[in-house]
Amino acid sequence: MRNVTTLIEQMTLEEKAGLCSGDNFWRTKGVERLGIPAINLSDGPHGLRAQGEEQDHLGVNDSKPATCFPTASGLASSWSVELLEQLGAALGDEAQAEGLHVVLGPGANIKRSPLCGRNFEYFSEDPLLSSHLAAAHIRGTQSRGVGSSLKHFVANNQEHRRMSVDARIDERTLREIYLASFEYAVKEAQPWTVMCAYNRVNGDYCSEHQRLLTGILRDEWGFEGFVVSDWAAVNERVPGLAAGMELEMPASGGERDAQIVAAVREGQLDEAVLDQAVTRLLTIFFRAVDARLEDAGFDAEAHHQLARRIARASMVLLQNDGTLPLANDQRVAVIGEFAERPRYQGGGSSHVNATRVEPLLEALKTRGASFDYTKGFEIDRDTPDQQLEQDAATAASHADVAVLCLGLPDRHESEGYDRTHLNLPANQLALIEAVTAAQPNTVVVLANGAPIVMPWAGRVSAILEGYLGGQAIGAALADLLYGEASPSGKLAETFPQRLEDNPVHLNFPGEGDVVRYGEGIFVGYRYHDTHDVAPLFPFGHGLSYSRFDYANLALSAETFDGRDSLTVGVDITNRGDREASDIVQLYVSDQTQTVPVATQALRGFDRVTLAPGATERVELTLARRDFCWYDAERGDWRLPTGTFEIRIGASSRDIRLQQCLEVQGDATPLPVIDRNTLLGDLKAHDGAVRVLREHLADIAEELPMLNALMEKEGKDDLMEAMGHYLPLRAVISFSSFTEARLSALLEDLKALA
Amino acid sequence: MRNVTTLIEQMTLEEKAGLCSGDNFWRTKGVERLGIPAINLSDGPHGLRAQGEEQDHLGVNDSKPATCFPTASGLASSWSVELLEQLGAALGDEAQAEGLHVVLGPGANIKRSPLCGRNFEYFSEDPLLSSHLAAAHIRGTQSRGVGSSLKHFVANNQEHRRMSVDARIDERTLREIYLASFEYAVKEAQPWTVMCAYNRVNGDYCSEHQRLLTGILRDEWGFEGFVVSDWAAVNERVPGLAAGMELEMPASGGERDAQIVAAVREGQLDEAVLDQAVTRLLTIFFRAVDARLEDAGFDAEAHHQLARRIARASMVLLQNDGTLPLANDQRVAVIGEFAERPRYQGGGSSHVNATRVEPLLEALKTRGASFDYTKGFEIDRDTPDQQLEQDAATAASHADVAVLCLGLPDRHESEGYDRTHLNLPANQLALIEAVTAAQPNTVVVLANGAPIVMPWAGRVSAILEGYLGGQAIGAALADLLYGEASPSGKLAETFPQRLEDNPVHLNFPGEGDVVRYGEGIFVGYRYHDTHDVAPLFPFGHGLSYSRFDYANLALSAETFDGRDSLTVGVDITNRGDREASDIVQLYVSDQTQTVPVATQALRGFDRVTLAPGATERVELTLARRDFCWYDAERGDWRLPTGTFEIRIGASSRDIRLQQCLEVQGDATPLPVIDRNTLLGDLKAHDGAVRVLREHLADIAEELPMLNALMEKEGKDDLMEAMGHYLPLRAVISFSSFTEARLSALLEDLKALA
Repeated sequence: MRNVTTLIEQMTLEEKAGLCSGDNFWRTKGVERLGIPAINLSDGPHGLRAQGEEQDHLGVNDSKPATCFPTASGLASSWSVELLEQLGAALGDEAQAEGLHVVLGPGANIKRSPLCGRNFEYFSEDPLLSSHLAAAHIRGTQSRGVGSSLKHFVANNQEHRRMSVDARIDERTLREIYLASFEYAVKEAQPWTVMCAYNRVNGDYCSEHQRLLTGILRDEWGFEGFVVSDWAAVNERVPGLAAGMELEMPASGGERDAQIVAAVREGQLDEAVLDQAVTRLLTIFFRAVDARLEDAGFDAEAHHQLARRIARASMVLLQNDGTLPLANDQRVAVIGEFAERPRYQGGGSSHVNATRVEPLLEALKTRGASFDYTKGFEIDRDTPDQQLEQDAATAASHADVAVLCLGLPDRHESEGYDRTHLNLPANQLALIEAVTAAQPNTVVVLANGAPIVMPWAGRVSAILEGYLGGQAIGAALADLLYGEASPSGKLAETFPQRLEDNPVHLNFPGEGDVVRYGEGIFVGYRYHDTHDVAPLFPFGHGLSYSRFDYANLALSAETFDGRDSLTVGVDITNRGDREASDIVQLYVSDQTQTVPVATQALRGFDRVTLAPGATERVELTLARRDFCWYDAERGDWRLPTGTFEIRIGASSRDIRLQQCLEVQGDATPLPVIDRNTLLGDLKAHDGAVRVLREHLADIAEELPMLNALMEKEGKDDLMEAMGHYLPLRAVISFSSFTEARLSALLEDLKALA
Repeated sequence: MRNVTTLIEQMTLEEKAGLCSGDNFWRTKGVERLGIPAINLSDGPHGLRAQGEEQDHLGVNDSKPATCFPTASGLASSWSVELLEQLGAALGDEAQAEGLHVVLGPGANIKRSPLCGRNFEYFSEDPLLSSHLAAAHIRGTQSRGVGSSLKHFVANNQEHRRMSVDARIDERTLREIYLASFEYAVKEAQPWTVMCAYNRVNGDYCSEHQRLLTGILRDEWGFEGFVVSDWAAVNERVPGLAAGMELEMPASGGERDAQIVAAVREGQLDEAVLDQAVTRLLTIFFRAVDARLEDAGFDAEAHHQLARRIARASMVLLQNDGTLPLANDQRVAVIGEFAERPRYQGGGSSHVNATRVEPLLEALKTRGASFDYTKGFEIDRDTPDQQLEQDAATAASHADVAVLCLGLPDRHESEGYDRTHLNLPANQLALIEAVTAAQPNTVVVLANGAPIVMPWAGRVSAILEGYLGGQAIGAALADLLYGEASPSGKLAETFPQRLEDNPVHLNFPGEGDVVRYGEGIFVGYRYHDTHDVAPLFPFGHGLSYSRFDYANLALSAETFDGRDSLTVGVDITNRGDREASDIVQLYVSDQTQTVPVATQALRGFDRVTLAPGATERVELTLARRDFCWYDAERGDWRLPTGTFEIRIGASSRDIRLQQCLEVQGDATPLPVIDRNTLLGDLKAHDGAVRVLREHLADIAEELPMLNALMEKEGKDDLMEAMGHYLPLRAVISFSSFTEARLSALLEDLKALA
């Protein structure tokens, strides 16, 4: 390892500033005279978009062929840490082959609204699931000597005005939901880089947000890499550098390097800040070049098969009356242009030039299935076409079963803009009507990156959610449709019955450049479960061709005080007649009523694969943090005291086993003591009660609202409430108490702390 | 009129400071040597609570007998400006008789959540209705030479931690909902005093909120009176005085007077500020004593009959299958302790010592009705009592019809604390089961100050919402039950099916001392209508024994530009066979999609009384403000351009007539110009587009996202979105544009303003 400190001493101010921005769209600057290397960065999270030397200004033109894996929506539905690691490793191998040092991804943003145009690139509405899968992705990539860039930090939950919008989020929600989705991945997987988001958070651009980039990411979480801007996310460069944003991308033609130089020269920026940034950059740059494998290559066919396995594990069987799996001797009408022109990835910076694409039609031919194909609708249009529908209905009526390949066209769902509704295009809705009228056994296969509404769900026999399944989409679908493998994916997000059922909709996408996160922590199932709003398909839901029993829930202890971890064990048995995988979910329900909480929150999960009749004991571990809420006033996580329920579910709405646990939490801290401290808040502290009684004894006669505190007779509901909610300074208003006596009281209370 | 300026010159600093707080709980200080009088204040909005010389420290003991009118929930359901004025005048007469100068009320706080314990003292969830009724109340009282104190300014929408909680409200919501509920009343009725609320708003206590008390109340709205603190609402006295809070109540034992004196002496407070406060106080003090009528009295029986008329007009027939009105020859089983011990007012500072109380049983005896009474349940308990239920069922089964008198006991609903659920007590729910099983014709009469849920609504024939009907409650109920008068009240608030159906519930009552108004403007029907959540009974709903037709909707113009007012005319015809009153509601639906708005908002109403067969033309006036939204960025009301729908309804969910109106709104202002101004926001301005094209022409080739702006080929959805959402400074990141050229561009854009 080079001695970075020595190198920095040899660098000119201009060279150091230069290191803090790109040389072009995808490459950093080197310093040849000192042997400082440049590194190459590239999109993206589910397949590389390496442009090599042919890069254009915006990096939007065609890239080199790479394996296109399913996008994050599908990946997350696998709930498979192992598969995510394998995917990450495959990306790493391809990056090595292409001479890339850092792959931009994964994206750990929370799916706040189903309308966000980029949801297909994000994992989940749940921070635990999102963060664990991101960590696995990073581990995989970095195991190959290639860096990850965890993005977009933070609260980039919409595309609408993404480069200017200010996400107004209360601190508890930011910590428990939006930051939590990054926190575990940073701490556990230590990505080489973190990419800051375009947007503002509570007033400040993420690219110059000191508290986020330094206070939380570095000081609290221990992040050791560098922060790179999302492409063109830089607002003011010098404050950004000081805040902890080391690398501006892409190039800014030397414009902002010059600003850094000037700021140091004019004393506005301490050169030590720049040196620290360069230290962080060089550390990763050298790690990257040291880990480069010359003459690396990758096995495209093996990666295609990996893409197929991952897709198979990712797809979610939402509904099935037994029509699936199909039998080999059934005559199938395959309908819908997606069967020949699959939508297998999303639009924008993550768009991959796939090594090959295997549509459903090709896969069906490969396996010698008995089917007819009709187009049914045109992907490039939204308006119904009666001729196509009639042809489809005819084909369906002549078959044993119809397989309808539907989904969202590219233009409906992309980076850059949000959706405005959750419907399928009108031509597809008309097609469903026509086909289901002609054929009672209709299976819908969906290609979409985010939830849609399904007013037609009751008319069809089965729904297989394929998400954006990557280049092997067709093979994976065929595997599942014909029962080569059992579906095993489970939703990593709630499918609502209506867009309006989501409280985020009240504040999405905001007004002007402000979006208030008015729903607070109640995102996704946290809202639906707590406020009892039935979803179309709940978080964690997914059917199988097999079935699983859950038994023998056991906790390693009957009480919990946050010091040791707690193990939750449960037996899972495959009661079906085929091998299949199940995803076991552990929810924790805080019933202490300390603060408003979600009815339950996901705190653990495992994916198990079982032979028919086999049983496996799943053990999941809970730690202190899994029981905590974030106390914004004190800036720390707090463990409440009281009863929690430990729940094991096959989905968030299919809880199979539960057990209570008594938690002995943190002592309630003394509230902040000032003239506005409420009497009621002091009552939990014996010492405070003693001090209050001493100081207020002689005026208690004047104040019936003190009766409860003084343990006197004469309580009534109003007086008790007034006494509870009474700020100390108001005692003066209601009695002969004085400012001087208040000061003395406050002094004695503060002495208790 | 005395020369206040001369008087102030003669006052010592101590005398001036002394004027700024009470002498005791209900009285201000005078300065005898200068002939400066003290004035007397007293609760409350629907009846006086004058304590005279027997006042106790907290003012909670018995007060002198006064007429107890229905509380605001009921008053508002009359939608009657005339009756509110009569009530206000009656309060003024009683105040004159008791030697009171200022009556504390009315309360114009918005019913944000149905759980707020003090909702019974507030009018509505709608600011227009609330503000107009408050104005009428004030006009009535002040017409008698007695001042009103409009309260609680502002955003005191819960009792939970009311003296310390910080209401976090975005500016648009504050303006359009919470302030609007006060604005018209202040501007139109000019109350002598406004009472500041206990709570904080966006960080500052209302009692020291410069922007609210001076910037908005005085400078924008032209308020001419003085601001009085809610009792003990003062946090820091000196900043409060500077902010515009003139009178601290109650007395503070001279403690805070001394702080004012010290602040002036030490130069922390300009004495001119104190002089201005004293000027405002003296102006009202003298107005008050000048308007005093010696030897005034009031006719208690006439006021009781006024209370009866008002109660009759306030009660709301929620449901009726024809069982009501009762016939004189029907045998009625009257059930429920409320029939003999009516709940006719709420608990707390508004509690009146009524001149007399007329329970339903007494009123029924007076009219010689044929009835039996059984208790059914005990008000003072919540637990079911099988014997009482059985007795009630037996009585019901022997009668033609059962009248069940139900409601919320005092302890369930009071100033000082909030409700935690919307249910009736368990014993009343059990009673409903028992009685409806025995008697198919069951009428429920409700006594409650705020909505309850009614899972039992389908089991009963009729529901008459009596609210808290004042001391003549029994007579009014009897009048309506027997059809002496037709019910005519309509709900001034939404009755939800479930508490969870209200988005406020996500953020109520907040966490610690913070409550976020995360639902924004979507309060009450604004939420239910916009997000299509069916209420139990909608805003504006109320049945009659008659029926009304609406016809001939006509607008005075086909377009509107905000300069002149617009008249909306409609014919109302009484198609029934009895005289009855109807409440016509005018809703405006902004369909311009300029900003997120409620589907419709109440912008006018009228109450008409019609003989059978009679038709009356109702004319309602709309002005510019009725079409505007509040633009927080620019701090002003903005008239959007586009289509509005003018709707005439019998309720918010029973729109009878509608007509479109084209509005030519304000020119879209040039956005704030800085480096983060979005390209897309500039496109509405021809001048700005010209400037952009000049400055960016030579680099447009590098930026496909500028194609739309440059009217070039090659647009695609992603690039168009990127071009729209692109901050000007990001052009540097994506092209060879420079900081220097950006500065030149910004200068030319700013020159357009």
